[in-house]
Amino acid sequence: MSTAKRSRTKKAGMAPGTLMHIGRERSVATQIEVTEYDASHLDHRQVDSLAKCLVRKPSPTVSWINVDGVSEVDVLREFGACYGIHPLVLEDILATDQRPKVEDYGDYLYVVLKMISPGKPGEEIHSEQVSFIVGADYLISFQEGLDGDVFAPIRTRLKNEKSRLRSTGPDFLLHGLLDVVVDNYFVVLEQLSERIEDVEDDLIANPAPATVHGIYRLRRQMLFLHKVVWPLRELVGSLQRRDSELIQDGTVIYLRDLYDHTVQVLDTLETLRDTVSGMIDIYLSSTSNRLNEVMKVLTIIATIFMPLSFIVGWYGMNFKNMPEYDLPYAYPVVLVVMAAIATGMVVYFKRKRWW
Amino acid sequence: MSTAKRSRTKKAGMAPGTLMHIGRERSVATQIEVTEYDASHLDHRQVDSLAKCLVRKPSPTVSWINVDGVSEVDVLREFGACYGIHPLVLEDILATDQRPKVEDYGDYLYVVLKMISPGKPGEEIHSEQVSFIVGADYLISFQEGLDGDVFAPIRTRLKNEKSRLRSTGPDFLLHGLLDVVVDNYFVVLEQLSERIEDVEDDLIANPAPATVHGIYRLRRQMLFLHKVVWPLRELVGSLQRRDSELIQDGTVIYLRDLYDHTVQVLDTLETLRDTVSGMIDIYLSSTSNRLNEVMKVLTIIATIFMPLSFIVGWYGMNFKNMPEYDLPYAYPVVLVVMAAIATGMVVYFKRKRWW
Amino acid sequence: MSTAKRSRTKKAGMAPGTLMHIGRERSVATQIEVTEYDASHLDHRQVDSLAKCLVRKPSPTVSWINVDGVSEVDVLREFGACYGIHPLVLEDILATDQRPKVEDYGDYLYVVLKMISPGKPGEEIHSEQVSFIVGADYLISFQEGLDGDVFAPIRTRLKNEKSRLRSTGPDFLLHGLLDVVVDNYFVVLEQLSERIEDVEDDLIANPAPATVHGIYRLRRQMLFLHKVVWPLRELVGSLQRRDSELIQDGTVIYLRDLYDHTVQVLDTLETLRDTVSGMIDIYLSSTSNRLNEVMKVLTIIATIFMPLSFIVGWYGMNFKNMPEYDLPYAYPVVLVVMAAIATGMVVYFKRKRWW
Amino acid sequence: MSTAKRSRTKKAGMAPGTLMHIGRERSVATQIEVTEYDASHLDHRQVDSLAKCLVRKPSPTVSWINVDGVSEVDVLREFGACYGIHPLVLEDILATDQRPKVEDYGDYLYVVLKMISPGKPGEEIHSEQVSFIVGADYLISFQEGLDGDVFAPIRTRLKNEKSRLRSTGPDFLLHGLLDVVVDNYFVVLEQLSERIEDVEDDLIANPAPATVHGIYRLRRQMLFLHKVVWPLRELVGSLQRRDSELIQDGTVIYLRDLYDHTVQVLDTLETLRDTVSGMIDIYLSSTSNRLNEVMKVLTIIATIFMPLSFIVGWYGMNFKNMPEYDLPYAYPVVLVVMAAIATGMVVYFKRKRWW
Amino acid sequence: MSTAKRSRTKKAGMAPGTLMHIGRERSVATQIEVTEYDASHLDHRQVDSLAKCLVRKPSPTVSWINVDGVSEVDVLREFGACYGIHPLVLEDILATDQRPKVEDYGDYLYVVLKMISPGKPGEEIHSEQVSFIVGADYLISFQEGLDGDVFAPIRTRLKNEKSRLRSTGPDFLLHGLLDVVVDNYFVVLEQLSERIEDVEDDLIANPAPATVHGIYRLRRQMLFLHKVVWPLRELVGSLQRRDSELIQDGTVIYLRDLYDHTVQVLDTLETLRDTVSGMIDIYLSSTSNRLNEVMKVLTIIATIFMPLSFIVGWYGMNFKNMPEYDLPYAYPVVLVVMAAIATGMVVYFKRKRWW
Repeated sequence: MSTAKRSRTKKAGMAPGTLMHIGRERSVATQIEVTEYDASHLDHRQVDSLAKCLVRKPSPTVSWINVDGVSEVDVLREFGACYGIHPLVLEDILATDQRPKVEDYGDYLYVVLKMISPGKPGEEIHSEQVSFIVGADYLISFQEGLDGDVFAPIRTRLKNEKSRLRSTGPDFLLHGLLDVVVDNYFVVLEQLSERIEDVEDDLIANPAPATVHGIYRLRRQMLFLHKVVWPLRELVGSLQRRDSELIQDGTVIYLRDLYDHTVQVLDTLETLRDTVSGMIDIYLSSTSNRLNEVMKVLTIIATIFMPLSFIVGWYGMNFKNMPEYDLPYAYPVVLVVMAAIATGMVVYFKRKRWW
Repeated sequence: MSTAKRSRTKKAGMAPGTLMHIGRERSVATQIEVTEYDASHLDHRQVDSLAKCLVRKPSPTVSWINVDGVSEVDVLREFGACYGIHPLVLEDILATDQRPKVEDYGDYLYVVLKMISPGKPGEEIHSEQVSFIVGADYLISFQEGLDGDVFAPIRTRLKNEKSRLRSTGPDFLLHGLLDVVVDNYFVVLEQLSERIEDVEDDLIANPAPATVHGIYRLRRQMLFLHKVVWPLRELVGSLQRRDSELIQDGTVIYLRDLYDHTVQVLDTLETLRDTVSGMIDIYLSSTSNRLNEVMKVLTIIATIFMPLSFIVGWYGMNFKNMPEYDLPYAYPVVLVVMAAIATGMVVYFKRKRWW
Repeated sequence: MSTAKRSRTKKAGMAPGTLMHIGRERSVATQIEVTEYDASHLDHRQVDSLAKCLVRKPSPTVSWINVDGVSEVDVLREFGACYGIHPLVLEDILATDQRPKVEDYGDYLYVVLKMISPGKPGEEIHSEQVSFIVGADYLISFQEGLDGDVFAPIRTRLKNEKSRLRSTGPDFLLHGLLDVVVDNYFVVLEQLSERIEDVEDDLIANPAPATVHGIYRLRRQMLFLHKVVWPLRELVGSLQRRDSELIQDGTVIYLRDLYDHTVQVLDTLETLRDTVSGMIDIYLSSTSNRLNEVMKVLTIIATIFMPLSFIVGWYGMNFKNMPEYDLPYAYPVVLVVMAAIATGMVVYFKRKRWW
Repeated sequence: MSTAKRSRTKKAGMAPGTLMHIGRERSVATQIEVTEYDASHLDHRQVDSLAKCLVRKPSPTVSWINVDGVSEVDVLREFGACYGIHPLVLEDILATDQRPKVEDYGDYLYVVLKMISPGKPGEEIHSEQVSFIVGADYLISFQEGLDGDVFAPIRTRLKNEKSRLRSTGPDFLLHGLLDVVVDNYFVVLEQLSERIEDVEDDLIANPAPATVHGIYRLRRQMLFLHKVVWPLRELVGSLQRRDSELIQDGTVIYLRDLYDHTVQVLDTLETLRDTVSGMIDIYLSSTSNRLNEVMKVLTIIATIFMPLSFIVGWYGMNFKNMPEYDLPYAYPVVLVVMAAIATGMVVYFKRKRWW
Repeated sequence: MSTAKRSRTKKAGMAPGTLMHIGRERSVATQIEVTEYDASHLDHRQVDSLAKCLVRKPSPTVSWINVDGVSEVDVLREFGACYGIHPLVLEDILATDQRPKVEDYGDYLYVVLKMISPGKPGEEIHSEQVSFIVGADYLISFQEGLDGDVFAPIRTRLKNEKSRLRSTGPDFLLHGLLDVVVDNYFVVLEQLSERIEDVEDDLIANPAPATVHGIYRLRRQMLFLHKVVWPLRELVGSLQRRDSELIQDGTVIYLRDLYDHTVQVLDTLETLRDTVSGMIDIYLSSTSNRLNEVMKVLTIIATIFMPLSFIVGWYGMNFKNMPEYDLPYAYPVVLVVMAAIATGMVVYFKRKRWW
C-alpha cells in the first residue's frame, strides 16, 4: 500500500482525469481475454490489441472482457474511447488504492473492490484491486494482474450450457464474479483463524515480546480486511436495492444472498478481532503473573537466608569476651535455632500459599 | 463453528443455489415428523420419505412438518420441488452457519435462527441451527438434529384442544416455536450467570492465570450469544411490524411480547458482560496488590537485616588494632545497638503502615 | 434479580399468557386500596376482594385502585376479567423482571417501571416493580408490595381540593405517580453520590483491594440504575408525544417536564459513572506508585549496604599475609572510606530525587 | 452542584409547579434592572418591586428586564402573574440545576443555559444558571446573581445608537446575550488549556500521584463543560432552524454563526480531552519506566557485589587446613580475580545497555 | 493555534460582524493577484489596491482573485463592500481558527478549509486557513499568506487553453483548488506514515520514555488532521449534493470523485491511528517484559549466592568447638557441596526456562 500512496503523492496537483498508474508495477504486458456467450453459443479468445473496439453493438450475446494488468495507460485510454468510459473512471481503475464502491454512470455501472486470496506460507494476505464496467450487454473486468485471479469457477460455469449464467445478462455475471471474490474472503478468514490459533498456543506455551508483535500483525491484517469488507457491504447493499436500471429483477434475490455473505464475513471478522484483543490482555496478565512468581522466589530466598546469614555473621565477630564461644553446646544450639527459623519461614510461606 | 467455516471454504466458487451441507455431520438418517391439526382434529405421524409431497393442498388444517437432520441433500431437494422453495433458501438451510434472519418470498417466509440449550456439565453451550418455512397453511421446521430439540412444550400444547395454537394458523405456531427457543436463551443465561459467580469466587479465593483463561472463555461464549441474539431481535421486530401478509393481526401482540423477551435477553447479557469485564480489572488490581505485598515483605526483611549484617561483618574484621575488641562491654553494647536499630526499623514500618 | 431469572427458567415453554408469579415471594396477602375522586368529592377505602368488579361504569369520578402484592395469581385473574385486561399484560405484571415500557391497548395503557428507594444503611438500592393500567376514568397500580411505596405525597395532594390532580383525569394521576417515582431516583442518586465520596476518601487514605471491590459494587449499582432509567426516558418520551388518545393536551406539558427530569437523572448518572471509572485509574496509579516507593527504599538500602558489607567482609578474610592488618592506621582509614562511600551514595540518591 | 442535588431531594414528591429555590443561597435581595429601547431612545433604570407589572403593553420599544438573584420565590411568582409565565417555567428558573434547553410556549420562548466564567486563581470554573423569557417585545433574563455577569458588552452596545441591537427585536438581543455567554466559554477553555500545559510540565518534571489527581480534576471540569455545551449546541441549532415564530429572518444568519461557535467550543474541548487522556498514559508509562530504572540499579548492585561478597566470605572461613591461606600470592590473586569479576559484570551490563 | 485562541478571548463580547484579525501575524502587506479567463483569453496581473472594485460586471469571463494575507482589516472591508459579502463572512475569513464548512448565501458560496503541507524537516505540519467566495462569474480566495500556497498546478493548468478549467465556470475552479488541497493531504499523510515507521523502529531498537512522547506527538497531529478532514468530507459531500445553484451539473461528477478522495484520506488516517495506538501497547508490553528479565537476573543471582554466602558465613563462625574445622577433608567437602548447590540451582532455572 505504501507504494500506492507514494505514487498518489507524485500525482498531487494533476488535472482530474489525468491517466497515471498508481500501484505496484508489473513487467508483463497487458493481456485481454474476450468471452462472448448466449444460451447456445460460447466464444472464448485472447486478443492483444483493441482493434476495431472489439464487440461494440447491440447484440443478443453478452461479452465479458477480462483485462489482466492495468499499468499500460494507453490500453486504458483505448477502452475509454471505445466504450465511452468517463476519464474519472479510467483514472480510478489505474489508481489501485481505491475504496470499494459502486458508481452509476447511466449507461454503465462502475464497481471497484479488492480481490483477496491467501498469501503463500509465511506471507501476508495477497490483495489485488479489480474493477468492473457493467453495461447493458457487456462486462469489462480490470485486474492488476499480479498473480492470477480467482475467477476460474466462473469460466467453468460459463462452459456449462445449463448454467443460469448463460441465459442471463451481465448483471448476473457481475453477481457471479462478486460471489467468488466474497467466497475467497471466507478462505482468507479461515487461514487467519488458524494463524490466530497458532499464536494462541504460542501465548500459553511461551509468551514472549515476539508474540505481541505477532498479535499486532494479525490485528493489522484484520483491520485491513475490515477496511475492504465494510464498504463492500454497502456496495452489494446498494446493488441489491436496484438503484440502477442495469440490475434485472431476477438478480436481486441473488444479490440479497451475497449481501448476507458479506455480513457474515464482517461477523466472523468481528469475532476474530475480539479474540485477538482478548489475547493481549491474557499476555499482559500472564506477564504480570510471572513477575509475581519471580518476585516470590526472590522474597522467599531472601527472607530465609538473610536472618540466617545475620546469625552466622554474629558468631563471626571477633570480640574477645563473647561468652558463647566457650560454651560447649553453643554451636549445636545455634544450629538448632537456625533450623527452627528456616522451618518457621517455610511454614509461614506455605500458609500464605506463597510456595 | 470452525468445521462450518472449513466447509464454506470448500464451497468457494460454486454456483449460487448449489446444495451442499455445511456443518457438523450426523450419521443417523433424516427423520420427518408430520402434525396436521385444526380446532377439532390432530394427526401426528412419522414418515420416512416425501412420497406424494405430503399434505400439499389448500385445506382448513394446519400442517407442521418437522425435519430432523439436514445433511441429506436429496431430501432437501425434494422439499424444494414439492413446496416451491427457492434454491437459495435450500442452500441456506443446509449451511448451518447462517446469521439469524427472516426473508419474505411472498408465498412463504423463511426464518433461520439458533436453537440454544445448556451443554452437559463441563461443556460449552449446545447450539443448533433451526430453519422455518412458513406458508399460508403449513410450517416446515428444519433442525440439524444433533441432540434433540426444545419443542416438547409445543407438542404438548398442540394436544390440548383448548390451546390457542389449535385455532390459529401457522404464524401463531411460528410464534410458539420462537417463544420456546427464546425461553431456552433465559435458561442458558442463568447457567452462564452461575458459572460467572463460580469464577468470581475463584477470583477472590485464589486468583491464578487459569482464572483469566476462564474469564475469556466466558467472554467468548457471551460474544457468541450476542451474535445470535442481536439479529434475532431484528428478526422478531420485523415479524411484529407485519411486513408480511402471512402474519395475522391477532399474532402481532404476541410477537410484541416475544420482542420484549429478546430485548430482555440482550439486557441480561449486557449486564453479564459488564460483570465479566469488571472481573478482569479486579484480577489485575489484585495481582498488582499481591506484588506490592510481596515486595514489602522483601523490603522489610532486607532493610532490617542488611544494616545488622553490616555491623556483625564489621566486628568480624581482623584488624590487629581494633580497640573495641578488647573493651569488656563492647559486645553487649553492640548487641543493644543492633536491637535498637531493629526496633527502630519496625516502628518506622509500622508508622508507614507497611507492616 | 437472580430469583426472578430462576423462575423465568421454570416458566420456559409455557403458553404465552399463562399466569405465574416471577420474583421474590411475600407472605402477606394482597391488599387493595380504592380512591374515587372528582373536583368536589374524595372517597378512600380498603377492600379485600374484587366483589362486583368495584367501580366499573362510565362516571365523572376518577378511580385509583392500588394493588399491593402481585403474587396471588387469582386476584390478577379477577382484575383481568373485570377490566378486560389482555392476558399478556397480566403475565407481565406478575413477572417482576420487566424492562420499563409503555404499551397502548386502545382502551387502556399499560405502563411498567421500577420504583426505587434508598436501601437501609449498609444495604443496596431497594427496587420494586410497579405497573399501571390507565383507562379513561380509572388507574390501577400494581406493586410488588415488598416494603411500602413512595406514593404518600400523591395521597396527600389528592386530599387537597385545590390540587390540579382533583380536576383532571387519570392521565394526570399517572404523571403524578411517575413524577414521585422519578423524584426518588434523585434521592437514590444523591445517596450513591455520598457513597462514592466515601469510597474516594478511602481510596486516598488507605487504598486496599477491598476498595476495588467497593468500586465495582458501585459500578454495578449504577449499571442497574442505567438499565432502568434509560428505557424510562423512552417511556416518558413516548407518552409526551401523545401517541395515545388517553393522554390529555394539558398533561403533555407536564410530561415534557418529567422527560427533562429523566434526562437529568441520566446526566447525573453519567457524571457519577465517569467519576467511578476515574477512581479505578487513580487506584492503579497509586498502587504502582507505592510499588515504586517500596522499590526505591529497597534499592537505597541495598546500594548503600552491599558495598559496605563487601568491605567489612574483605577485612574478615584470613589470609596470613594481608599487609593491611598490621598497619596501625588501616582500621581508621577503612572506617573513613566506608563513611565516604555511604555519604556519596546518599548524595547521589538525593540528586536523583530518590530520597 | 451537590447543594443543588440535595435540595432536589428535599423537593421529592411536591406537586409540579411548586415554586422552591434549588441551589446555592445568596443573602442579598433580588435586584431588577430595566432597559427600554428603540432605534432612537434608551431608558435604563433600577427597580425594586414589580409595581404595575412594569412595561406590559404592545409597544414599539423593546424591554430588557434583567433579574439578579432568583432565590426570592415571591418575586418570581409576581413575574409569572404579570407575564403569564407557566408555573413549570418558574419552577425551572428556580431550580438551578437545569440542563440547557429551549422551550416554545407560543407567546414566549424559555431558554435556560449555564453562564460560565473563569474562577479566581486556584479556583474551579465559576458557573451560574441564566434563564431567558423571550416575548414579542420583551426579554427577561434571570441570573442566580452570585458574582456579577458577563453582559457588560451588551449594555455598552445598547448605548450605541448605530448598533444593530437598537433597531431589532428581542430575538437579536437574545442572540447577543447568548453570544457573549459562548464567547466566555472560549475564555474558560483557554484558561483550562493553560492549566493543562502546567500539569503537563509537572508530568515531565516530577510525576507524582498528586499529578494524577490534578489530571482527574481537569477531566472532571471538562466533563462538566461537555455536559453544558453539548445541549447548548442543540439549543442554538433549534433556534436557528426557526422552530419558533419569535425568531426573525434576519437573526437566523447570526444564530448560524453562533452555532458554528458552539461547535468550535466542542471541538476544542474534544482536543483538550484527548490531550488529557493521553497524559494518564504518559504518566503510567513514565512510572513503569522509573520502576525499571530503579530495578536495574538494584540488580546491577546485587549482581556485582553478591559474587564478590561470596568470595570474601570464602576466605573468612576458619578451616584449619585451607592451603590458600599460607600461599604468599593468594591475597593478590584473589584481589585480581575479584577485580576481573567486577569488570566483567560492568562490561556485560554495558553490552546489555543496562547501564 | 494557541495564538488564535488567545485572540478569540480578546474578542469576547464584541458585536457579531466586528472585523478583527484572529491568528498569527504577518508583517508583509496583503497582495492581490487577479486572473481573468475564458476559453480563448487569459489575463493575469498583480494589483495593490481594490480601486474601482476590480472586475465587477456580468461578463463571459471568469475572474479568480487570490488574496494573500488577511491581517489587513481594511482590505477585507473593501472586498465586502465591492462584492456584497456579509459581515459575518468577513469576520470568519479574518478568524483563522474556523472549522471547515460551506455556507450558501444565495449569490455566493462561502467555503473555508485548512490548506496543509508538510512542515520543514523536524517541524510540525504546516497548516493555513484558506477561504473561497464563489459567485456566478468570480472566485475570490483568501489565504493567511504565511508561506506560499499549493495552487501552482492550477495556475499552470489555467495557462493551458485546452484545460477543462478554461471552458467552465468558477465552480470547476473551486473543484480544482479543493482538489490540490486534498492532494496535499495525501502528501502530509505519507510523510506522517514515514515518521510513524521511524518511531516504530525506535520502539523495537531502544524503547525509552521519549518514544512515548513521540507517539503522543504523532497522535496529536493525527487528531488535528482528523479534525480538519472530517468536516471537509461533509463540506464536499454537501457541494456534491448540489445544495446550491452555483454548482453546475458537469462539476458534480468531479466533486463525487473529490468526495471519494476525502473518504480515502480519512481511511488512511484511521489506519495510521490504529497503528499508533497499537504502538503504545507494544511499548508497555516490552517495558513490562524488560522488567521481568531484569527481575529474573536479580533473582537468579540472589538465589545462587545467598545460600552459598550462608555456608561460607557458617564456617566463618568462631565457636571453639566446631568439629568440622579440624577434620582434614572438611574444606574440600564444603567446596563440593557448594558446587553441587550452585549447579542444582542453575539446572532448576534452566528447567523453569528462566535462564
